[in-house]
Amino acid sequence: MDYTLQQIAEALGAELKGDGSLRVTGAAEPGMAGEGDLALAMSPRYAEALGQGRARAALVWPDADWQAMGLKGAVIAPRGRLAMARLTQLFDLADDAAGIHPSAVIDPSAEIGEGVHVGPLAVIGAGAVIGAGSRIMAQASIGPGARLGEGALVHSGARIGRNVTAGARLIVQPNAVIGGDGFSFVTESASHVETARAELGQGTVDEAADPTWHRIHSLGGVSLGDDVEIGACATVDAGTIRPTRIGNGTKIDNLVQVGHNCVIGDHCLLCGHVGLAGSVTIGDRSVLGGKVGVSDNLTIGADVVLTGGSIVLSNVPAGRVMMGYPATKIDTQVESYKALRRLPRILRDLAKSKS
Amino acid sequence: MDYTLQQIAEALGAELKGDGSLRVTGAAEPGMAGEGDLALAMSPRYAEALGQGRARAALVWPDADWQAMGLKGAVIAPRGRLAMARLTQLFDLADDAAGIHPSAVIDPSAEIGEGVHVGPLAVIGAGAVIGAGSRIMAQASIGPGARLGEGALVHSGARIGRNVTAGARLIVQPNAVIGGDGFSFVTESASHVETARAELGQGTVDEAADPTWHRIHSLGGVSLGDDVEIGACATVDAGTIRPTRIGNGTKIDNLVQVGHNCVIGDHCLLCGHVGLAGSVTIGDRSVLGGKVGVSDNLTIGADVVLTGGSIVLSNVPAGRVMMGYPATKIDTQVESYKALRRLPRILRDLAKSKS
Amino acid sequence: MDYTLQQIAEALGAELKGDGSLRVTGAAEPGMAGEGDLALAMSPRYAEALGQGRARAALVWPDADWQAMGLKGAVIAPRGRLAMARLTQLFDLADDAAGIHPSAVIDPSAEIGEGVHVGPLAVIGAGAVIGAGSRIMAQASIGPGARLGEGALVHSGARIGRNVTAGARLIVQPNAVIGGDGFSFVTESASHVETARAELGQGTVDEAADPTWHRIHSLGGVSLGDDVEIGACATVDAGTIRPTRIGNGTKIDNLVQVGHNCVIGDHCLLCGHVGLAGSVTIGDRSVLGGKVGVSDNLTIGADVVLTGGSIVLSNVPAGRVMMGYPATKIDTQVESYKALRRLPRILRDLAKSKS
Repeated sequence: MDYTLQQIAEALGAELKGDGSLRVTGAAEPGMAGEGDLALAMSPRYAEALGQGRARAALVWPDADWQAMGLKGAVIAPRGRLAMARLTQLFDLADDAAGIHPSAVIDPSAEIGEGVHVGPLAVIGAGAVIGAGSRIMAQASIGPGARLGEGALVHSGARIGRNVTAGARLIVQPNAVIGGDGFSFVTESASHVETARAELGQGTVDEAADPTWHRIHSLGGVSLGDDVEIGACATVDAGTIRPTRIGNGTKIDNLVQVGHNCVIGDHCLLCGHVGLAGSVTIGDRSVLGGKVGVSDNLTIGADVVLTGGSIVLSNVPAGRVMMGYPATKIDTQVESYKALRRLPRILRDLAKSKS
Repeated sequence: MDYTLQQIAEALGAELKGDGSLRVTGAAEPGMAGEGDLALAMSPRYAEALGQGRARAALVWPDADWQAMGLKGAVIAPRGRLAMARLTQLFDLADDAAGIHPSAVIDPSAEIGEGVHVGPLAVIGAGAVIGAGSRIMAQASIGPGARLGEGALVHSGARIGRNVTAGARLIVQPNAVIGGDGFSFVTESASHVETARAELGQGTVDEAADPTWHRIHSLGGVSLGDDVEIGACATVDAGTIRPTRIGNGTKIDNLVQVGHNCVIGDHCLLCGHVGLAGSVTIGDRSVLGGKVGVSDNLTIGADVVLTGGSIVLSNVPAGRVMMGYPATKIDTQVESYKALRRLPRILRDLAKSKS
Repeated sequence: MDYTLQQIAEALGAELKGDGSLRVTGAAEPGMAGEGDLALAMSPRYAEALGQGRARAALVWPDADWQAMGLKGAVIAPRGRLAMARLTQLFDLADDAAGIHPSAVIDPSAEIGEGVHVGPLAVIGAGAVIGAGSRIMAQASIGPGARLGEGALVHSGARIGRNVTAGARLIVQPNAVIGGDGFSFVTESASHVETARAELGQGTVDEAADPTWHRIHSLGGVSLGDDVEIGACATVDAGTIRPTRIGNGTKIDNLVQVGHNCVIGDHCLLCGHVGLAGSVTIGDRSVLGGKVGVSDNLTIGADVVLTGGSIVLSNVPAGRVMMGYPATKIDTQVESYKALRRLPRILRDLAKSKS
């Protein structure tokens, strides 16, 4: 795959400087770039490294003196990561996926759209519907009655359960699980954990009570909007009697847990190891950093930012930036934290002043 | 699938009111219920929503005025979630699993019980024993010598390793791994992390030491009781020379890690992202909230509740309700937390009074 | 499989006492050992339990009076866990893996080394290279163009993506994913989370902005050194334009997330549920306890120890032992923690002294 610098500038909607006929075959960090590479030098701190590599063309920051850096041509990237999104898309090799592999096991009642690829040893269940142009990669499973919109990309080993529906352009990374059963159990009479929650820690242990956990089954499936992405080994559980929902354009990272009955809005990001207990609601455009945990039945508003590691134990209003365990407004948290760091010395001084 | 209201009342062991001959074909939230649905209105806050839906029958709270809410019949549910357990079981469609799919790869020495279903592209290893009535779903693996009791349900892509034994009615969600190798490594001489643990942070780095990690192999397998459930992408490691054990009726959520040599009692719940390091012991009926971590070789008593996000660094006596990092009794934790929130202001006042 | 005590002493490079001709067929805890077992009694606290079991031979601590404990022979183990590493290796039964199963789907352009085992229903993509003596177990996938060194062991359901290269003796536990796409997205104009990060929580919500997340594709693959081990359901994402790297001898536990562009040194340990955001650098021989999280673009030096549950929000110099959220030096953390525990009482006293 190769492109002229002119073609790249056009694909990026960006300004071209110098020789637009230069051909590049890949992208590289400035110091490691070969002659055929487009160097990625979107901020001044890369200027020096450019001299160590052999690139003749680069993505550069707006007022870069590209000629002084020894380049023959440059593309201006005022917002570097956005340029990266477009550039990496250009250079991404599609998986060589074409047609239906004879080893795939497809139920005769499944509806397979036009141009769909089904990889080796994939399984598609009864009544499933796969939208046109989708790619179901090796050893993935699509459960009975699942419905995927057009252009889905389901990677190797991903499991889409029965009763899962998705809009267009779903991406599911390897070994993710969508539509497993919710974690929802109940004892005959109130359990220790129920009384402990109700009475803030003063739970009573009833030794005569039957400790058997009865299973609440998950009949509600999962409903995903358009342009949703689910990370590797992430899990999205089915709802109880209505679907667990994830809105349009929301992206979910690896190893994230979305509990049964959750409703996640549009254009959210949930980073690695985020865990949502059952029945959590999250508004549009909220961003949950890595390892954030949210307790069951809580509501997080729109445009909320939860920094990595926050544990959320109460509802969060829209627009808040929160941190800590338990999560509070970030300035409250930082203030408490600073005070705590000063505390040992203050206590020592206090002890001294008393003696 | 449809039931009369009479049949539902009987299945739930619950009191019937009104017309027991009404037929329902599913369950729904009150506001979204159609004519054929049983509305779930187990507490007074759902009363109004009932009017927005079209249900003629509902599960209601004990002294609900069901006729005033426009219903033709009702079933009384004094403990709503318990009613849900029984009701969702009634309406759960079994996966259409029947017989042994010709694409499954089953070692001739495996013993397959009566009525067992083996889905497409599943693998069953040499000498494995599968109890009667079990369902091994698509692309799952049962390792050599593994033994599952009757009525097991192993979902798609789950991996049961060699030397894993399970009692009756095991449920394993998709892509879970039971019996992987423990994470157990040792260097020739004491490593930095060993000295740091022994001397509380004053570890010494011996630059001459060989940093190679030698692997302690996992020969002990895993032993699961009756009625155990393991969540999607959860991992239960094999023991070193004796099995890692999980007791009867214990339920484990998605993405939980149970380390090698752990011994978990009966009727415990381990919620999403719980992580137990190696050789942790947990007593019966304990409940670990989401993201709880327990350090290696610790003992947690019976009837303990650990709230979500707790990090446990020392043994926990039976019956305790614990919270925080490091985990302490919940009232101690709440008291510290409240004091910390007041601290910045107190320090400001202190500074003012000195000046 | 059985060995004489003499053979075991030689394999362990350890001193033999008593009858070297005794034959043992397995290893067991002292109190549960049968006549044919080698009891593991590497410290004095096991002496009593030896009497409850029936072992005639044991691994014992250096100055143990093995004859007084009723043994016929003993092997001296001055460093017990190291002896365990060698002993468990002796008794580990290799998976009965031989040859290429006819149900595996191997692209004709793949290069399969000598003596390689490919299990049932495994998939090997176009142009992949599998080193001699490797074992690709049931239902695993090796992506197009992936290259594994000799002696690899890829367990059931593990997914090795395209553009992944590994040195010799790679071990991948079941359902791990190496080479999934990085979690890297960007909006057209600065998003709320960007401004919140830049301005410490004072993010502004621009309601007119397009909230669409554009995907930065992952073209860089993953590069693993020699002797790397990756845990069950762990995920290692591909780099953007250069590989995500893991050094020689580094071991990664179950459910760990390694983000795109991370560079991890040699001989590190990353315990269960560790999460590294994108572009984190970790020096050689560092040990990250369970559930440690590291924010993006940070650098952790060599020989660092992070205790379980630490959340790292800034760079960490070499040799540090760190704890807490946010992670600080362990003695600072312990001091703050002790002061916090005393605080409620001090505030009560203060209030009293004012009144």
